[in-house]
Amino acid sequence: MKAGKISELTTNRLSIYLRCLTLLADEDIKTVSSAALAKRFHLNSAQIRKDLAYFGEFGVRGVGYDVDALRDHLIKILGLGRTHRVGIIGAGRLGSALTNYYGGDRSTFEVAALFDVDPLKIGERIEGVEIFDAKHFPSIAKRDNIEVAVIAVPAEAAQDVFEQVTAAGIRAVMNFAPIPLKTIGDVKLKTVDLTTSLEGLAYHLSGAASLNGNNPEPGPTGRRN
Amino acid sequence: MKAGKISELTTNRLSIYLRCLTLLADEDIKTVSSAALAKRFHLNSAQIRKDLAYFGEFGVRGVGYDVDALRDHLIKILGLGRTHRVGIIGAGRLGSALTNYYGGDRSTFEVAALFDVDPLKIGERIEGVEIFDAKHFPSIAKRDNIEVAVIAVPAEAAQDVFEQVTAAGIRAVMNFAPIPLKTIGDVKLKTVDLTTSLEGLAYHLSGAASLNGNNPEPGPTGRRN
Repeated sequence: MKAGKISELTTNRLSIYLRCLTLLADEDIKTVSSAALAKRFHLNSAQIRKDLAYFGEFGVRGVGYDVDALRDHLIKILGLGRTHRVGIIGAGRLGSALTNYYGGDRSTFEVAALFDVDPLKIGERIEGVEIFDAKHFPSIAKRDNIEVAVIAVPAEAAQDVFEQVTAAGIRAVMNFAPIPLKTIGDVKLKTVDLTTSLEGLAYHLSGAASLNGNNPEPGPTGRRN
Repeated sequence: MKAGKISELTTNRLSIYLRCLTLLADEDIKTVSSAALAKRFHLNSAQIRKDLAYFGEFGVRGVGYDVDALRDHLIKILGLGRTHRVGIIGAGRLGSALTNYYGGDRSTFEVAALFDVDPLKIGERIEGVEIFDAKHFPSIAKRDNIEVAVIAVPAEAAQDVFEQVTAAGIRAVMNFAPIPLKTIGDVKLKTVDLTTSLEGLAYHLSGAASLNGNNPEPGPTGRRN
């Protein structure tokens, strides 16, 4: 493997290749060419070859990639060969949903603790995960080896929470609050905005409507398409 | 308002401005300058002025934007002035989580129905929303005026589901399956990959580790930072 950091776009693609290879492995497929991988999963075969060549030779000319070997290597490159412990801040609707979702696979990511400021929630459990007082984040994070913080608090509290968790030594943060956060130093911040994504779809639907007379209300059929 | 489609990057920003303005309105703030908006929410003030100028004059020189008027206008531009009915395909862990999450605000998006292929789930309810047999998607979507399909099925089933919902007339799809989908015609497809986002954080953590001797295991302290 060559040294140096890989770009986020590249790690995103590697993460997708890994999932595609896992699907192939589940079907007992042993080798796959970049062309077959691209066709099956709607990827770009030239891009696959370029991305994978960067890490050394995995392909055998005329045969393709060894599915298991390539999978193992991607797991290693992406740092997924061990469990990362996650703390979710915000035990409301979204925090509960994420605990439920990420609780499905505990081999790579494990939700170790939830945090909230609501006294009624502290001490309760969601999917077996205890809710702690948010002010104890630094000590619980240290005790439980939490490396990743997931922010699932209301928009107006997100920046404060971000600053608290990074002050506690967290260097990888996933923000679900629908608001931009200002990051610092070597902290990796990813934002997943579930609201903006849905709102973009609404615009697409209204965009078609505006071509039919800029009417914000549905037509007489109550349906636009 | 000028005619024509706005880019996805622009609608994403407008969606964020809208949320920022809603926070200000909640605090009874009546006017805000682009500079103040930028500072408070970590945005770019020149970009704000550029984005908003595109839709006409909302700012008054020396005073700023009228918060309520601008908010109303963004709601209209983004097509958020009416309720969009959503169907979620996949009533597993993720589908349940999304029903729970999007169920919080029923004014803009309302989860009208869930769909699954598991006979044990069909007829059950999550957050009051009924689970229907996936094969009845076309008739239920028509009956309930479903405009947005949310795909929350396993990766290997996602492309088939995408083709079924678009064949049923759906033109706005949000895909949560961690796999690329091939889209068609004028269907707007957004992918939110919760797994890739977390895996990118793992890479960031392992990247720092590799600088300390390329050791995939945590150090003796069990912690890296």
